Amino acid sequence: MKVNNIHGGDTDVVSRLYGIDKADIKNFSGNVNPLGLPQSVRDAIINNPDVITGYPDVSYVELRAAIAEYTGTDSENIIVGNGSTELISGFIKTVSPKKAVIVSPAYSEYQREIELTGGSVVLFELEESEDFKLNTDKLKKALTSDIDLLVICNPNNPTGSYVSEEQASEILTHCEQNGIYTMIDETYIEFADEDVKISAVPLADKFKKLFITRGTSKFFACPGLRLGYGICSDKDIISKINTKKDPWSVNSFAELCGKTMFTDTEFEKKTKAFITGERNKIKTELSKWKNIKLYDTQSNFFLFKLLRDDITSSQIFENLIRDGLLVRDASDFPYLGESFIRFCILLPEDNSRLINKLYNIIEK
Amino acid sequence: MKVNNIHGGDTDVVSRLYGIDKADIKNFSGNVNPLGLPQSVRDAIINNPDVITGYPDVSYVELRAAIAEYTGTDSENIIVGNGSTELISGFIKTVSPKKAVIVSPAYSEYQREIELTGGSVVLFELEESEDFKLNTDKLKKALTSDIDLLVICNPNNPTGSYVSEEQASEILTHCEQNGIYTMIDETYIEFADEDVKISAVPLADKFKKLFITRGTSKFFACPGLRLGYGICSDKDIISKINTKKDPWSVNSFAELCGKTMFTDTEFEKKTKAFITGERNKIKTELSKWKNIKLYDTQSNFFLFKLLRDDITSSQIFENLIRDGLLVRDASDFPYLGESFIRFCILLPEDNSRLINKLYNIIEK
Repeated sequence: MKVNNIHGGDTDVVSRLYGIDKADIKNFSGNVNPLGLPQSVRDAIINNPDVITGYPDVSYVELRAAIAEYTGTDSENIIVGNGSTELISGFIKTVSPKKAVIVSPAYSEYQREIELTGGSVVLFELEESEDFKLNTDKLKKALTSDIDLLVICNPNNPTGSYVSEEQASEILTHCEQNGIYTMIDETYIEFADEDVKISAVPLADKFKKLFITRGTSKFFACPGLRLGYGICSDKDIISKINTKKDPWSVNSFAELCGKTMFTDTEFEKKTKAFITGERNKIKTELSKWKNIKLYDTQSNFFLFKLLRDDITSSQIFENLIRDGLLVRDASDFPYLGESFIRFCILLPEDNSRLINKLYNIIEK
Repeated sequence: MKVNNIHGGDTDVVSRLYGIDKADIKNFSGNVNPLGLPQSVRDAIINNPDVITGYPDVSYVELRAAIAEYTGTDSENIIVGNGSTELISGFIKTVSPKKAVIVSPAYSEYQREIELTGGSVVLFELEESEDFKLNTDKLKKALTSDIDLLVICNPNNPTGSYVSEEQASEILTHCEQNGIYTMIDETYIEFADEDVKISAVPLADKFKKLFITRGTSKFFACPGLRLGYGICSDKDIISKINTKKDPWSVNSFAELCGKTMFTDTEFEKKTKAFITGERNKIKTELSKWKNIKLYDTQSNFFLFKLLRDDITSSQIFENLIRDGLLVRDASDFPYLGESFIRFCILLPEDNSRLINKLYNIIEK
């Protein structure tokens, strides 16, 4: 593992390697909501430490109802898990794909799980020349008759590019007609603009072969909670995943925090407004720069390409970390090279610091 | 599922079915430490709700060190999981037994997991005529050449009977020589008398094919936490189980609570002294009764058999629940019949209430 590509920008490791106090590191690599844990969740925990003296509800009825209300679907369509990883793994084991297409560059876990289950993987390349936007016609052609699973991350990590509801509907219609399952990972979807329709949740009832996964780590700033959920209108799929997993893998704390965060509409509104504002500000600024290509994003992070040959993403990483600014050198993702950097939106003063520093390195 | 054999004596279900306020139910069926959650754990949670804003340590170094100190083994021998169920499942998937012997009556999960993995199961009967004590010679004979896994719960649930360290050593020597893995579930072992040597942990270094599992739900009164651990000196087994499970299945709250509870030696001492005292008191009392046979136990629960033909365990369950006393009708365990009752040790006044009521039903 490259030092600069440690999981989620592991600040403990970076702190040790670069001799920087952990508190002095600004983590632009973790993609976590800078507004932090909702106060409502903190309060729920402080007031209910004894929630662990009982088992979680084995059917998670109230938790699933809160998620149903939050996402606008039926609670019968929802399954909860120990992080979205448990559900990604459970879904892949359940459909046991022989050959899958993964829209790439993407999170490496999809491929690992498919191969562990004995399936093979074809990467479908989001092309730089198309600004990493998904080309529906090319994708359909890549879904040959031997393919039984398609995996899309929307908005995509690390590119930030996204698929509209309309585009998803066209892809899902094609997949449904050809007996192909589709898994859409919507980990970053809540950071999208209010008026941009990109979630596939409204399509869940129509497409039985669609499985949507979501986590809570990024938007609710709680990667240690391990709470994820899946949405699928095929009851048989939900039931099969449930029989493969531990019945109480979501512990009582995660159950309580989930019931709290999904009903905290104030936090949701505040985050969306904040991220949209900062995203627009950063986009306006960086679009003026001559020495980078900035890609459009609906997530809480940006990907850009250096247009200068005399400097690499790794050098920029090294330069920034000396100042405690931890960005993601994206050079190890498939199809990206030594000139790609990803960084997420933090608080305004932190963002300004990063942008000023980047300007000095790249533009000046 | 019989109403009276609901999981762990699910008090929500009982409350609804019998129209009793949940707070008025004394749960003698759950086998949970009546001293409740350690105050140290409660304090740790209240003071650190933000622990979930970071990932748990993927190697759980500090948590495993605390368990190593607590159990008296090396931390290299320890694996942690989302409840002992994740580890039982992981171990069984790893050794993938063709044919297993389960010392029975026992927890049904072992058999389910073995069969899910494609193995078959032979139940080895703990005989009533031998007071459910494990007969080593008979067991060895049952371990024919086609057996590759032996499962023992020690102390055993529901009988309370137990295997000494010496007896375990004899069994393990036989298994090791014959290429048989042994899984010992020590969920209830911390409730045993201080001076009774029944844990197999001191044998772990000697026997590579031994896997010990333990939970925290019962002794630390936190079934909702989902924290279990396994002990095995074969690094290859530990590593294989780890690759099969989600890396962060123990969330940050469970990690924090674990580090706290395993170092709370006061709580451990207090519980052991309390349970030993109450167990002796109840044993002395019930041993005088003419209409029951009480079995020796090193756990926090007792099993007894009704010696009267005119009354069944189900009738006793029904009679007691009307007074809010929830015991375990043990009639659905293999080899037990309609005259077996299991109840656990609660606080002194609750135990007295149950015993008085039982006396009136059975002895008067």
